[in-house]
Amino acid sequence: MNRVQPKTLSGFMELLPNEQVLFNQMIDKIRSSYEKFGFLPIDTPVIESSEVLLAKAGGETEKQLYSFTKGDSNLTLRFDLTVPLAKYVAEYYNQITFPFRRYQIGKVYRGERAQRGRFREFYQCDIDIIGDEKLNIINDAEIPAVMYETFKNLGLENFTIHINNRKILNGLFEAVDEKEKSVEIMRTIDKIDKIGKDIVVAIFKDDYNMKEESINKIVEFIEITGTTDEKLEKLCNLGIENELYKKGVEELKEVIKYIRLFNIPEEAFEIDLSIARGLDYYTGTVYETFLNDYKSIGSICSGGRYNDLAGYYTEKQLPGVGMSIGLTRLFFILNDIGLIKSDKKSISDVLIISMVEDLSKSIEVANILRNSGINAEIYFDDKKIKAKFKYADKLNVPYVIVIGEDEIKSGKLTLKNMQEGTQEQLEIEKIIDKLK
Amino acid sequence: MNRVQPKTLSGFMELLPNEQVLFNQMIDKIRSSYEKFGFLPIDTPVIESSEVLLAKAGGETEKQLYSFTKGDSNLTLRFDLTVPLAKYVAEYYNQITFPFRRYQIGKVYRGERAQRGRFREFYQCDIDIIGDEKLNIINDAEIPAVMYETFKNLGLENFTIHINNRKILNGLFEAVDEKEKSVEIMRTIDKIDKIGKDIVVAIFKDDYNMKEESINKIVEFIEITGTTDEKLEKLCNLGIENELYKKGVEELKEVIKYIRLFNIPEEAFEIDLSIARGLDYYTGTVYETFLNDYKSIGSICSGGRYNDLAGYYTEKQLPGVGMSIGLTRLFFILNDIGLIKSDKKSISDVLIISMVEDLSKSIEVANILRNSGINAEIYFDDKKIKAKFKYADKLNVPYVIVIGEDEIKSGKLTLKNMQEGTQEQLEIEKIIDKLK
Repeated sequence: MNRVQPKTLSGFMELLPNEQVLFNQMIDKIRSSYEKFGFLPIDTPVIESSEVLLAKAGGETEKQLYSFTKGDSNLTLRFDLTVPLAKYVAEYYNQITFPFRRYQIGKVYRGERAQRGRFREFYQCDIDIIGDEKLNIINDAEIPAVMYETFKNLGLENFTIHINNRKILNGLFEAVDEKEKSVEIMRTIDKIDKIGKDIVVAIFKDDYNMKEESINKIVEFIEITGTTDEKLEKLCNLGIENELYKKGVEELKEVIKYIRLFNIPEEAFEIDLSIARGLDYYTGTVYETFLNDYKSIGSICSGGRYNDLAGYYTEKQLPGVGMSIGLTRLFFILNDIGLIKSDKKSISDVLIISMVEDLSKSIEVANILRNSGINAEIYFDDKKIKAKFKYADKLNVPYVIVIGEDEIKSGKLTLKNMQEGTQEQLEIEKIIDKLK
Repeated sequence: MNRVQPKTLSGFMELLPNEQVLFNQMIDKIRSSYEKFGFLPIDTPVIESSEVLLAKAGGETEKQLYSFTKGDSNLTLRFDLTVPLAKYVAEYYNQITFPFRRYQIGKVYRGERAQRGRFREFYQCDIDIIGDEKLNIINDAEIPAVMYETFKNLGLENFTIHINNRKILNGLFEAVDEKEKSVEIMRTIDKIDKIGKDIVVAIFKDDYNMKEESINKIVEFIEITGTTDEKLEKLCNLGIENELYKKGVEELKEVIKYIRLFNIPEEAFEIDLSIARGLDYYTGTVYETFLNDYKSIGSICSGGRYNDLAGYYTEKQLPGVGMSIGLTRLFFILNDIGLIKSDKKSISDVLIISMVEDLSKSIEVANILRNSGINAEIYFDDKKIKAKFKYADKLNVPYVIVIGEDEIKSGKLTLKNMQEGTQEQLEIEKIIDKLK
């Protein structure tokens, strides 16, 4: 027979079962965190009409698209969950209840250059709150509350949610009359950690021909430090007479106030005046989240407030605020640095191993365990005892029940704790209590 | 602005949130049923190399494929979860523990002609048990045990798992020397309910030129009726001297024996000698599952035993047994006939509505509820009370907590049961007990 080599495409994550168990636990924890705040699930198609999906797309994205024709249709695989959300909200506007709080967890596709830790198929886990015409600023504080809940739930300890407001940045650039150069200025500021303040100032002066007064103001701004409250105070006292700037500071104050009401501890968030998150989409609060011990991997959860979700599809003004976790990359990184916390390393709570040929007793025990809500597996193969325990080991199963002639006679089963290597004889009811 | 009409492709199911909640509950129940038997999750890519995915595909399938090129690569979207499983097992053979019990729940793609109840993107929920060279017959009985558990879990009552064995059919056709015509004979038998016995016999005689003796044997076979044990006895006493046939009857007996040990009640399964499930893939036990009150919708869960999972990829002999639920179609049908059973119609267990402007108390209450594992949502918008309750209604939320000045003073919150329309004043601890 002509055989084909079985091979998964590069850039596509495919896990062995024991890792998949951990991955799925992460999805479950993210989902239950999102649901704890009452977000509603949606599940849009992976394939959409290209016309619909690319109504908004720019040139940079288009190169990475998985686009193709089928019959007369131009189709594209979704490259994020935001455009499908915009389509969904515009399409079902009359059937949706606003504010619309939705989550979606699903795969998206980007034909990026394959490299370690970059994936062409990856899970995004998004939440957004969409208002009809307006949306209360408290929502901007609830998003970080969900982030905090989610990462705590994932077992991460040392992370910080960085918060800024785009109105502050845009207002500042307006105030110093450098609005047109805001993209370049932000990009340069972004590098300040690497190149130092003096070089930043030199670039402002020599490359961008900025006035000294403007440069001083911006430097003063980016040098704002201190506690959250000190930063807020300094922002107020910077003497910037610009309405947008003032509105931004006001919003940031409100968000911080509510973040505290949501019980996010002080060490888990900070005002970070250097984050901007691109310059065309977000219009207010913006977030990035960093693992403090692994800052170099970049933000693991980002998002923000936007004025207009679906302007390409509808005349309705649909402001929103949301965030996204790129789970495939996050899993890859956490797995790499050993930060995956798991409650359960296996699907089965127990493996039943029979020492006798007749499997009736094993099946009976499995029935009882399963009816009690315990995941139980029976080893059916007629192999040597060593092979059976090797199977249990490879499954990472925490307990094994051994059923031999003694156990059938006495009614007490041997329960072996695989981690500790201990074993005891117990009645089935006791075993159920122990496993639950 | 030039607007694009937001439109989902036809043949792609996209649900409103309240229905998505029910759909997701079905997935959860299927998954937990599969996990109760210790099946391990895998998650293969939606996109595979065409060469790999089509190593085995026939002409009929190819027309329906979503195939395209990206750069130098010919790519195809998966059209089932069986070929990806074969690839997976062949690719990771050395890292997998056999017997390999895997489940996969995911979307597959078939460009079928769009019609009501047919979908181009749909979820399959598969389980398979793959052996290395051999696989114990008990596994053929555990698959129906999982089916039974799953459908009970989904709240379906009146269903029957139909069981047959392909060796019996193949052996019978060998015995009457009509092996080459087996496809046509099976197809004709399939129609017996519609066209009647006499026409079937006429077709055998006139169209297929079959010997009278052969026809009599086949008629005798398909007319076997009675209880499961009567059927087994009649199969033994049919006087068919063929090894394959005898092996098939023996296997069927074994499977029935174990099915009973797995506590599947007699009314939930039956021997059905008319099911064959195609003729090139399955080699032993085959299953179909019918809703007894809705037989016309066809089998809602099918599968069987095969000798060789991955012959196109590997020289390893990998026998297996499995089954698949086409969830998208099943959901569509059950929703249509009103058979979706749901424990919970909303994500939020409770919606908190504030009668005062200051939301501090509402947030405080939400924090406590969420920390107690309750899904709690706060209504943030400053609207009239009527609009707030309308929102609660649309969410299908079972309870609303109302927080006004009285509640803040007394410390007792108003808990409203939305279904019953009743309300009471309770302390937060009492509310937690009630909601849990």
